[in-house]
Amino acid sequence: MAARRGKPAGATGPVVRRTLHLLDAFSPERTALTLTELARQAGLPPSTAYRMLGDLVGWGALERGEDGAYRVGLRLWELGALAPRGLGLRERALPTMEDLSAVTRENVQLAVREGTQVVFVERIACSGAIPVRTRVGGRFALTATGVGLVLLAHAPTEVQDEVLGGHIPRYTDLTVTDPAELRRMLAETRGCGFAISDRQVTDDALSVAAPVHDQRGEVVAAVSLVVRHGSAAPHALSALVRAGARAISRAIGEP
Amino acid sequence: MAARRGKPAGATGPVVRRTLHLLDAFSPERTALTLTELARQAGLPPSTAYRMLGDLVGWGALERGEDGAYRVGLRLWELGALAPRGLGLRERALPTMEDLSAVTRENVQLAVREGTQVVFVERIACSGAIPVRTRVGGRFALTATGVGLVLLAHAPTEVQDEVLGGHIPRYTDLTVTDPAELRRMLAETRGCGFAISDRQVTDDALSVAAPVHDQRGEVVAAVSLVVRHGSAAPHALSALVRAGARAISRAIGEP
Repeated sequence: MAARRGKPAGATGPVVRRTLHLLDAFSPERTALTLTELARQAGLPPSTAYRMLGDLVGWGALERGEDGAYRVGLRLWELGALAPRGLGLRERALPTMEDLSAVTRENVQLAVREGTQVVFVERIACSGAIPVRTRVGGRFALTATGVGLVLLAHAPTEVQDEVLGGHIPRYTDLTVTDPAELRRMLAETRGCGFAISDRQVTDDALSVAAPVHDQRGEVVAAVSLVVRHGSAAPHALSALVRAGARAISRAIGEP
Repeated sequence: MAARRGKPAGATGPVVRRTLHLLDAFSPERTALTLTELARQAGLPPSTAYRMLGDLVGWGALERGEDGAYRVGLRLWELGALAPRGLGLRERALPTMEDLSAVTRENVQLAVREGTQVVFVERIACSGAIPVRTRVGGRFALTATGVGLVLLAHAPTEVQDEVLGGHIPRYTDLTVTDPAELRRMLAETRGCGFAISDRQVTDDALSVAAPVHDQRGEVVAAVSLVVRHGSAAPHALSALVRAGARAISRAIGEP
């Protein structure tokens, strides 16, 4: 390929994209996949998939178990740990999150927006804290959770229009799915500096979330406390969450 | 490429490996890189690197900032979060680690072996805990830390020979670098079920580590407490760490 002058780069595209497409097959529900499953999912002949997987295993992106199945490898986890919006953000936020957890004994969550979804970057839960549906590295709709409402409230208009114009998933009877009502909630979130999601994700949990800003003032993340509905006044929690969000914003700005 | 029957897969190898090699340029010390730096490091013409980087950005493996620099993207972090030996292990171990942290108010660390090095998968540190040199996602020599000694003690003979026959880094005056002395320590670690690293990494810290086993009895990780030297008797800590390691082993075996 390198020998065919004039079109060396054009040939790389399909292979790079196919390699990434192979990795797309892994999900929280499917963490171990066979060669056959990977080849089928990526639309590749097994022999081609086998060689590409060999390169990925050789580098450490994937690991092959004694059962023959492929799993995401530690090297990829190490590389992912270098993502500023992943572990980098988490490391800066962790001391404050530990403080919030120690004071409240409740769930403390940290999330960022990726496109039209929330991605949870960290969650601390004391034993005794109310069970939640979120998972570190997991995605969720922007419209239902406290952190999602904060991130959507500060997202570009195009993102808001896409989310509110599309399918808005319902998790409980109280999940707000009316776009006009959601727009009102987003305006309120921007106005008061925090968002409340009251039993919109599970029947018994309430979350209060506040925005985390970078040095330029952009909202880059959101932090929340998730408590049992009725266990605390949301407005009392909001002061704590907002103070925590400010502490994390400051930590992000430090060299 | 797909049209050239007989050698469709052979052509993918260099591109897959070159793509991975591009990603290799990122490290804890270099989390933001320019096109020029990436092309140079991967030994690629800038135009080729630019197109490959475009594919990587399109998929979300990398993100390009307003400063034009490339950074590891959130999508790669999400994918890395699916690594059983990374976040998967961490999620299983976290409740026990939080218990150890709450009881001792000291650093609690979780690590796995990758080749001839330790990779730290999690670290919990209360405010007031002694500063340590480790970082989540970071690597360290197997010979100096408590977790490293545990992992090396249970590594295949070839790995032990490679580590003890190679360069053994020194961090303090007390770092053990004599292969014969290290072999004696490894045997002792296997015999007593825990390892002690006394001021071998920093001048004031002592760590006590114990092995975490999977369902088949293989040592797959190590957990440690890191305390100020002189603040607690290592043998008192060892019971706590060993009990914690057993709890984590049990959690790993649960469905």
